[in-house]
Amino acid sequence: MSEIELPADHPRYASLLTRHRIEDGVEKGITSKQGLIAQGRGEAFDYLLGEQTIPSADRAERAAAAQLLLADHPVLSVNGNVAALVAPEIVDLAAAVDADIEVNLFNRTEKRMEAIAAHLREHGADAVKGLTADGRIPNLSHERAKVDADGIGAADVVVVPLEDGDRAEALADLDKTEIVIDLNPLSRSAQTAAIPIVDNIIRAVPTMTEHAEELHGSASETLNTIVDQFAASDALTAAEEAIRTGV
Amino acid sequence: MSEIELPADHPRYASLLTRHRIEDGVEKGITSKQGLIAQGRGEAFDYLLGEQTIPSADRAERAAAAQLLLADHPVLSVNGNVAALVAPEIVDLAAAVDADIEVNLFNRTEKRMEAIAAHLREHGADAVKGLTADGRIPNLSHERAKVDADGIGAADVVVVPLEDGDRAEALADLDKTEIVIDLNPLSRSAQTAAIPIVDNIIRAVPTMTEHAEELHGSASETLNTIVDQFAASDALTAAEEAIRTGV
Repeated sequence: MSEIELPADHPRYASLLTRHRIEDGVEKGITSKQGLIAQGRGEAFDYLLGEQTIPSADRAERAAAAQLLLADHPVLSVNGNVAALVAPEIVDLAAAVDADIEVNLFNRTEKRMEAIAAHLREHGADAVKGLTADGRIPNLSHERAKVDADGIGAADVVVVPLEDGDRAEALADLDKTEIVIDLNPLSRSAQTAAIPIVDNIIRAVPTMTEHAEELHGSASETLNTIVDQFAASDALTAAEEAIRTGV
Repeated sequence: MSEIELPADHPRYASLLTRHRIEDGVEKGITSKQGLIAQGRGEAFDYLLGEQTIPSADRAERAAAAQLLLADHPVLSVNGNVAALVAPEIVDLAAAVDADIEVNLFNRTEKRMEAIAAHLREHGADAVKGLTADGRIPNLSHERAKVDADGIGAADVVVVPLEDGDRAEALADLDKTEIVIDLNPLSRSAQTAAIPIVDNIIRAVPTMTEHAEELHGSASETLNTIVDQFAASDALTAAEEAIRTGV
């Protein structure tokens, strides 16, 4: 993706970079109409959050990194907005925690699947799952249920950023440990997750990678302690409080 | 515009109708990419407001109706999202308060101007201003400054729904009484307005029309009292409180 000329310490860096990338995503056929509306919803919540990673979100990102390092078969699920917003960052996170990357779309068309897979490869992904679609998530209608049997179908830990509530619930019902990135702490996706991260994806994914790199090589007990000490309900309450009160 | 089959008392009627109309707006070339993102931001704020017209917004809508009835030359400014979301309702409001309708776009192209004017005429507008563009708002760059000299240029009261902050400020500087409809009470547009209406436009415009029809024929003193008793800062505080606390 082309990048804008903007210093990383600019106060509105994340906001402007996000906007730039999402528009580039439209040009490339990656971002849908629904994706643009969803982007706007996220902007409003991020605005109320003060466009910052609040402490409870940072703790969630650290717990997510530990959970991914503990996993046997972690998968990062990528939809149109995720690909548009954080393709290089998702590739870095996958490398840091040895995860598969799988494209999953709410409105699945072969053309968008291919465009997103190509965009991810362009940013360094060496294998992109999701195109085989030989597995199904129970309790979802046909197109929305499709996954790769050896990808999300076989995963024990799944990262689903910016995911629709029905899908997030159906995945959680499958006994997979679900990590959700969503700026609305009241959304069903966030409420359903084992580890909900209420943060802008453009800040959340690099922070997860930093934590993973720092925790790499730690003993399982250390990682398990970090995961066990994380309480999803506390994180959601803190995020809602931050949005409601601006603190 | 095509309408969806949905009873008006459905709990998510406004939300679903809004979504349907905005997508129809994209098909017709009326709604831009920026418009879709703005729509999403509005959805998030409306969600936090409980998708309802709060009492302070209803009072603002009544004050706006009174102000419009008192005006010598009221103008309703229409951009892409306004046209997509409330074309028939804007035509009704213009009739109720004897106002002009003028198309004004942040990203002005002749093609979108024409598409929006055609869409408004299709919904009953007999005259649509904005295409002459022989007036300018001072302190704005060329394309964004364009207005009709005998429309917004000559107006004493202007309704600017979903307006960009720079434009709202430049209009307020012109000594025009500005009525803004915006779901974010912290936005510069809302902060700048003489009468800020923090409500979903799909609820706000018909409510303004109802108030105007009820107030029609009232003495100027009655209308002036309604306007004078309205306090913009109280309305903004009440709206922010509602969004922050969910009450």
